[in-house]
Amino acid sequence: MKAWEKNIRTIKHPYVAGYQPKDYSVTKLNANENPYPPAPGVVKAMEEFETSSLRLYPALNADELIDEIAHFKQVKPSQVFVGVGSDDVIGMCFLTYFNSGKPILFPDITYSFYDVWADLYRIPYECPKLDEKFHIKKEDYYKDNGGIIFANPNAPTSIAVGLDFIRDVLEHNQDVIVIVDEAYIDFGGESAVSLLEEYDNLVVVQTFSKSRSLAGLRVGYCIASEELIQALNTVKFSYNSYTMNMLAIKLGAESVKDTEYFYQTIDKIIATRTWSKEQLEQLGFTCMDSSTNFLFATHKSMAAKEIFEKLQERKIYVRHFDKERIDNYLRITIGTDQQMEQLVNALKEILPDEKNING
Amino acid sequence: MKAWEKNIRTIKHPYVAGYQPKDYSVTKLNANENPYPPAPGVVKAMEEFETSSLRLYPALNADELIDEIAHFKQVKPSQVFVGVGSDDVIGMCFLTYFNSGKPILFPDITYSFYDVWADLYRIPYECPKLDEKFHIKKEDYYKDNGGIIFANPNAPTSIAVGLDFIRDVLEHNQDVIVIVDEAYIDFGGESAVSLLEEYDNLVVVQTFSKSRSLAGLRVGYCIASEELIQALNTVKFSYNSYTMNMLAIKLGAESVKDTEYFYQTIDKIIATRTWSKEQLEQLGFTCMDSSTNFLFATHKSMAAKEIFEKLQERKIYVRHFDKERIDNYLRITIGTDQQMEQLVNALKEILPDEKNING
Repeated sequence: MKAWEKNIRTIKHPYVAGYQPKDYSVTKLNANENPYPPAPGVVKAMEEFETSSLRLYPALNADELIDEIAHFKQVKPSQVFVGVGSDDVIGMCFLTYFNSGKPILFPDITYSFYDVWADLYRIPYECPKLDEKFHIKKEDYYKDNGGIIFANPNAPTSIAVGLDFIRDVLEHNQDVIVIVDEAYIDFGGESAVSLLEEYDNLVVVQTFSKSRSLAGLRVGYCIASEELIQALNTVKFSYNSYTMNMLAIKLGAESVKDTEYFYQTIDKIIATRTWSKEQLEQLGFTCMDSSTNFLFATHKSMAAKEIFEKLQERKIYVRHFDKERIDNYLRITIGTDQQMEQLVNALKEILPDEKNING
Repeated sequence: MKAWEKNIRTIKHPYVAGYQPKDYSVTKLNANENPYPPAPGVVKAMEEFETSSLRLYPALNADELIDEIAHFKQVKPSQVFVGVGSDDVIGMCFLTYFNSGKPILFPDITYSFYDVWADLYRIPYECPKLDEKFHIKKEDYYKDNGGIIFANPNAPTSIAVGLDFIRDVLEHNQDVIVIVDEAYIDFGGESAVSLLEEYDNLVVVQTFSKSRSLAGLRVGYCIASEELIQALNTVKFSYNSYTMNMLAIKLGAESVKDTEYFYQTIDKIIATRTWSKEQLEQLGFTCMDSSTNFLFATHKSMAAKEIFEKLQERKIYVRHFDKERIDNYLRITIGTDQQMEQLVNALKEILPDEKNING
């Protein structure tokens, strides 16, 4: 070991990213990307963008983007914080809001970055277990803690809780910050944004990566009370003043303006989800009740890992987590109708013949 | 005070950004932006960019950009780390490399973010004073410490040190990480990249914001030994896997490819700097010997703050730091020849008449 190595930050459970195929001919249902392109206004803004302006620094406060989000969500611009994807936003939230010596709380099965951020920033944490049906037990969040984060709808389970649940958690946790990560909220959940007027310790995080078809642009945001956003800005501006590049600001703002396209795209995905769930159930899968752009499914007779591998042989990529309690499940992104038909046809080849099993 | 406020991270000296006028008609010489547009290849890449691809996540490792930088710098891709501007890169370096209980060292007059990052991450630090001529005293960096960072050329002084100086600091600091922030190196300094083969504890940081005319795109990078880059990646991927959006990767890569335009632009700025320095000296300024795209200048009879304000009345923006030891200096970005002529003409109006003073 070299002498300087002792000064280097080590992380207990560093994040290891899932495999992302570079071959664009595959059917990619493994990253919860939107199968439809960004709004027409985004394409137009790209065409009209004056590339020479890139010589200048971007707007310090990303005002254009923040103003559009605030207008769309009917909150004040001073209640909105934007970042490089919701990962940047939540990472900044962990650094800013979770400075207690007490453990923060989040479910054992949830977005796989929460424990990584806690490790990175040396924040103690506890992970209450979801119940057998993968539902969050609200009583687990009544105890003394240093802060709370949960995803609604939860990932990778796809299950949403209602506003009564969130209100209950907030009522029991007035002395800490409660973050609701709504990455998938647009596909069927009820947003906690409506609770912001009542609770000044609530932070609601959303993203442009799923419902706005802009994963490649890296834009996420959160909405909270002005005090909380100001605290977040103090930390953010003390890390990097200019996180949002000019294109993220401009194209992001144009995306928010096009509400009609936004809702159309979501409706299409929800319709495809309904069809896909029926098809999978006919093939012997059980799917959680999804409020997201993916299905979380387990098969009655074939192991998830085997299905995952056999799909991959056919160039269809879904997600399998080699993790306790969920290792017999697949997370399947809702693609286009055509992609889902491809998936269903492949599954028909892969799965054991029903008659042989039952007969 | 609300109960939840006690959990919020506070920062002793939070960063407060300088004023950036939104009026594009002003002469903007206050942010060290490049007056020339990005390389023609960048414009072409923008035109050819397939906007629909933004629905997908960007390449996890930003390979295309990293490969071009590695090729240009003649190092291995595994020695290159990219981030959202050099601020993101240095911020990640502080978090990753400065984990000793001992204070890190950097000069009292230097880039104003170093103490902010140290405060943010609760890293102890000491700031040895530059000498009276604003030169770094290498002996100040011989003592026991938790790491070292300095800018070369230094900002806002514009003064560069030679490789012999850096080698000396490295020889005296084999047990800690030494970061050289080369944001302005392309305008006249000698890069420490050539020392990387000898020192595995050296990190060299550069940026696309100045010499590559891409401040608005937010791209910075560092080059170091493979072990150091791996440690940085472990922390970075545990914060945010996808920091570089697709456009930053693509346009950044195209910028690096166009070496001819790169050197042409730099040569033009250096020629304008030479002319501007002569002009300012004729007007009674003393300018530090600049290896950057700005001049650090003080006037023999008029206070810097007064000049700053009078220029601003004429819609010419330069930078003035209200900070001990340098509050009688102006930092003036090198613009186009035309912009510098404008500045010189304005100064002729503003400054006291030489004959009246001497006569």
